[in-house]
Amino acid sequence: MTNRIVSGIQPTGRMHLGNWMGAVSNWVSLQSTHQPVLFVANLHALTGAPQLAEDMRYTTRQLVYDLLSCGIDPNRSILFCQSDVPAHSELHLILSMVTPIPWLERVPSYKDKRDALGEEWNHYGFLGYPVLQAADILLYHPTGVPVGKDQLPHLELTREIARRFNHRYGPILCEPVDMVTETPVLPGLDGRKMSKSYQNTIPITATQSEVETLVKRMVTDPNRVRKTDCGTPEQCPVFAYHQQFSTPEACQDVAHACRTASIGCVACKTQCAAALNRYLHPIRERAHTVTNQTIDEVLAAGRIQANQLASYTMDKVKQVIGFS
Amino acid sequence: MTNRIVSGIQPTGRMHLGNWMGAVSNWVSLQSTHQPVLFVANLHALTGAPQLAEDMRYTTRQLVYDLLSCGIDPNRSILFCQSDVPAHSELHLILSMVTPIPWLERVPSYKDKRDALGEEWNHYGFLGYPVLQAADILLYHPTGVPVGKDQLPHLELTREIARRFNHRYGPILCEPVDMVTETPVLPGLDGRKMSKSYQNTIPITATQSEVETLVKRMVTDPNRVRKTDCGTPEQCPVFAYHQQFSTPEACQDVAHACRTASIGCVACKTQCAAALNRYLHPIRERAHTVTNQTIDEVLAAGRIQANQLASYTMDKVKQVIGFS
Repeated sequence: MTNRIVSGIQPTGRMHLGNWMGAVSNWVSLQSTHQPVLFVANLHALTGAPQLAEDMRYTTRQLVYDLLSCGIDPNRSILFCQSDVPAHSELHLILSMVTPIPWLERVPSYKDKRDALGEEWNHYGFLGYPVLQAADILLYHPTGVPVGKDQLPHLELTREIARRFNHRYGPILCEPVDMVTETPVLPGLDGRKMSKSYQNTIPITATQSEVETLVKRMVTDPNRVRKTDCGTPEQCPVFAYHQQFSTPEACQDVAHACRTASIGCVACKTQCAAALNRYLHPIRERAHTVTNQTIDEVLAAGRIQANQLASYTMDKVKQVIGFS
Repeated sequence: MTNRIVSGIQPTGRMHLGNWMGAVSNWVSLQSTHQPVLFVANLHALTGAPQLAEDMRYTTRQLVYDLLSCGIDPNRSILFCQSDVPAHSELHLILSMVTPIPWLERVPSYKDKRDALGEEWNHYGFLGYPVLQAADILLYHPTGVPVGKDQLPHLELTREIARRFNHRYGPILCEPVDMVTETPVLPGLDGRKMSKSYQNTIPITATQSEVETLVKRMVTDPNRVRKTDCGTPEQCPVFAYHQQFSTPEACQDVAHACRTASIGCVACKTQCAAALNRYLHPIRERAHTVTNQTIDEVLAAGRIQANQLASYTMDKVKQVIGFS
């Protein structure tokens, strides 16, 4: 039996450092012990703002490019598009028949988002987001699902849906176990959480000069107005980057220099950008090897592998329902 | 361009005279001008009371057996199981992303059924029934959809969903046109509408003696208590059968005899059963030729044909969304 994890990411544009630190680096590490099943969640993406077809095609390929650059290895991971595996839609529909509406209405992120977006976006598929998530996971019988703490309610809902199905039809679907990973939260350029919607991100495939430009734009300790003021590194987003990407010694040095006003923010940022560039170097190197042909081949192979795994589950599901 | 109609029936047991008069006889006639795309709506069946897997398998095959016996010709119609064509689930999911929840909550049959069945059955998929219906229809670009008047709101919803999709992505889905057919409403054995849930049905493949037994059980004009009382044929369900299945002359004769009390109900029913048996004779004859192998072959061929037609639509849908 293969140790397997399942995860999906929506195709929304270039992957950023926050995605990498929060999720993708974990998947890369897990490749040594697990088979990651990773999909471009393009069906989930339809619950958001409409994208042009060409944008959807572009962001999908960009995501695969980024994942391969990060070190997702198609020999150890299965990487595919959700819409290329009809079983996601098939199991979604079947699970929709055992999922009470109140379970979905109670999901905190549904209520928040519905209130934020307004009735216009309150589509049937938006309410059913967790049902599709359940299908995404249950199809592949993962030994674990890497999640952030905020996603634990979704995974619990997946387990409840699986239990409902199994209770009605027989023990076919495995209740997935969560693998909560504590990850450092990297601030964005403006000090808030790094997020595409805040436009405060650093793409993981940024060039050296892009990194330098972006780091220069970063906000710093707001209480350090003049270069001669002593700074408080703990209040500076740039220092948070030093902690992640500089050596411990360099980190200690820069903190001391900041506190004693013996280094200015410009110089500190130059060091930070250099450290980040060193950190991103392997990703950038790998990115150079990823061609359009690589992306085509990886998606084609992933499609076959994912359909194979998923059809194994769907065959059993159809059998116990009496569809075959 | 092929003239095409689309319709589905839930697998719930033996087909009865009400089904035949209300829908199936129409499909059989339409075969001369249209290609009917007919499916066993086994996914829709999951919104109802749970069936055992063996019952689902049995009722599915029974339905195909009945349709073939009725004269559905696999050389002119496409006959398949809904769950054998993943595109139904795929398009359902995609359409769910453009269907506002209030549209579904307003569907009269949803509100009625939800109130009748109670919260326990209020599953996500139950609310989404019309979305799956829209997918069922839109996949096959029918020139018409034969419906009863009560189903017009569903078809209007299908058109609205198609318009929404086309507005967002481009003119891919054809808004289906309704073909409302006025059909005689045949009463059941108890005088109410013939319906499986009332257990007042006559199966269309009933044997001669079954028909005789069932017609004997029919209620008659309630005001004709004694054989010597004069009857009112218009108030007698048995006479409604004579009108459908006896010759016009025999019908006139039996009406006169009833009004003058010169025929008793037992004799009238014997004539009725004989007329019905003559009417059902061709169906019964065809039924004798339908083997298990026929059913397997028809479903296997239908599966291939339906997947071909549906993939034509799904390819275009995926193209305009940017999934391919």
